[in-house]
Amino acid sequence: MTVYYNGQYLQKSEVAISPDDRGFLFADGVYDVIRSYRARLFKCAEHLERLVYGLRELRIEGIDARSLEQVANQLIENNKLEAVDALVYLQVTRGAAPRSHQFPPKGTPLTVYVEAKAFSPPVEQQQNGAGALLQPDQRWSRCNIKTIGLLPNTLAHQRAREAGAFEAIFSRDGLLQEGSHSSILFVKKDVLICPPLTNRILPSITRSVVIDLALAESIEVETRSCREGELFEFDEVMMLSTSVEIVPITAVNGRKIRRGSLRPITMRLQNAFRRLAGQMNSERWD
Amino acid sequence: MTVYYNGQYLQKSEVAISPDDRGFLFADGVYDVIRSYRARLFKCAEHLERLVYGLRELRIEGIDARSLEQVANQLIENNKLEAVDALVYLQVTRGAAPRSHQFPPKGTPLTVYVEAKAFSPPVEQQQNGAGALLQPDQRWSRCNIKTIGLLPNTLAHQRAREAGAFEAIFSRDGLLQEGSHSSILFVKKDVLICPPLTNRILPSITRSVVIDLALAESIEVETRSCREGELFEFDEVMMLSTSVEIVPITAVNGRKIRRGSLRPITMRLQNAFRRLAGQMNSERWD
Repeated sequence: MTVYYNGQYLQKSEVAISPDDRGFLFADGVYDVIRSYRARLFKCAEHLERLVYGLRELRIEGIDARSLEQVANQLIENNKLEAVDALVYLQVTRGAAPRSHQFPPKGTPLTVYVEAKAFSPPVEQQQNGAGALLQPDQRWSRCNIKTIGLLPNTLAHQRAREAGAFEAIFSRDGLLQEGSHSSILFVKKDVLICPPLTNRILPSITRSVVIDLALAESIEVETRSCREGELFEFDEVMMLSTSVEIVPITAVNGRKIRRGSLRPITMRLQNAFRRLAGQMNSERWD
Repeated sequence: MTVYYNGQYLQKSEVAISPDDRGFLFADGVYDVIRSYRARLFKCAEHLERLVYGLRELRIEGIDARSLEQVANQLIENNKLEAVDALVYLQVTRGAAPRSHQFPPKGTPLTVYVEAKAFSPPVEQQQNGAGALLQPDQRWSRCNIKTIGLLPNTLAHQRAREAGAFEAIFSRDGLLQEGSHSSILFVKKDVLICPPLTNRILPSITRSVVIDLALAESIEVETRSCREGELFEFDEVMMLSTSVEIVPITAVNGRKIRRGSLRPITMRLQNAFRRLAGQMNSERWD
């Protein structure tokens, strides 16, 4: 696999991250994931703007993240991914420097790593739905920055998987936040309910796309906090992300979501999303 | 510099961390730092037990961290650090595997990295004290595990340094917690006041040593939560860590601590600590 590492295209096996890299020592970096639908990067500008925001919030200077679009396209070409679905993973850290909590001296080269690989979305879950597991949200208070400090996310996700669920849903102070690596939306009485974009959740690009699609479909959209206790009053629950697109959540902690098996709004949004992503084919799922 | 990496002793420049390492991608690992006073590892067993605890809490299996004592000693020898003060840094991550929030398959080799280097403690600050800067505690809720997810710590520390302070002090919900990479203790009316060991702070080994020293010196010790508003009612404030040992905090946010310039209890504890660490020389600082 050809990857991009600090200005060069090389084989992944040739990449040698320094043990002094602040990504390895301090989780001092940001990342993003962009979907490529047959060589077309989906919402690339939005993903790179989010990377720009994260870099700015962490005060990581010395890169215009927007320049990585060209790198992403080059990797798709180099790895012959033009004809398939792929994921592009981009990570920028504050670089390698002798270990100190202080930032390294100005001018220390950042670490920039990008890879692209073929990817198949979870079609089975998109079609039949999946279960989720509620987890206490143990993360830091700046979840609106897409940092590589994902340890609490991996722990929650692992617990979900071990419980037979597909994803974890974080709950903090009794409020439903988001998944461990996905966003969540709810439906009640044909209204799409979106948790507010606070510092506690990531501004998901898929979520933003889906909200726009809902509005275009004349689905009413409401933004408000959602209590954990409301979960089984919702008609539909869905998780969203760049990789999973839209997956209906049909049960949480083993208990069924009211209309989890029917989910008319989720299906409409899935179809609209698929059309937008240029993936719509003759087979409809509704 | 000779370092230890996955079972081998090699030059640091030969270490190649994989871009798939879960330390680099997810902050999925733990670390510790052990002080060597002229080839004598200080409280080595306690540091390694803390590493064992962290590994267990994160469910990272496949290493007996206690075996790293021998590695630490070997690195001190290989790097000719027997006659000087040194710091041994140890990090264990869940290893390298294709990126997924789920744990890698059982049997995936962990990444184990250890280095040792000469170190000079901040003598000037130990003698004359240093300033601190209050910072909101944005960290996750398991600060009692010494993980490499240190981004909020580095951000707070950097802000402190830019404000001319030596360390940041985290405050959460109005309660003083600890420093960005140190522990804090207070003195009021000759009583040593210790914030309780909750999930919000690291069980500092230096703190534990200093509390034992205080008891041996017949200093009264009280464990209780300390409000941010109390800060300027304390007679003395001190920060503690493996590297800084004991440094008096003489001002916070530019405002003087009451008896910051006198600090009799801090000085007694510094002297007791120095005797314990076998560093006491003819020159006393009181």
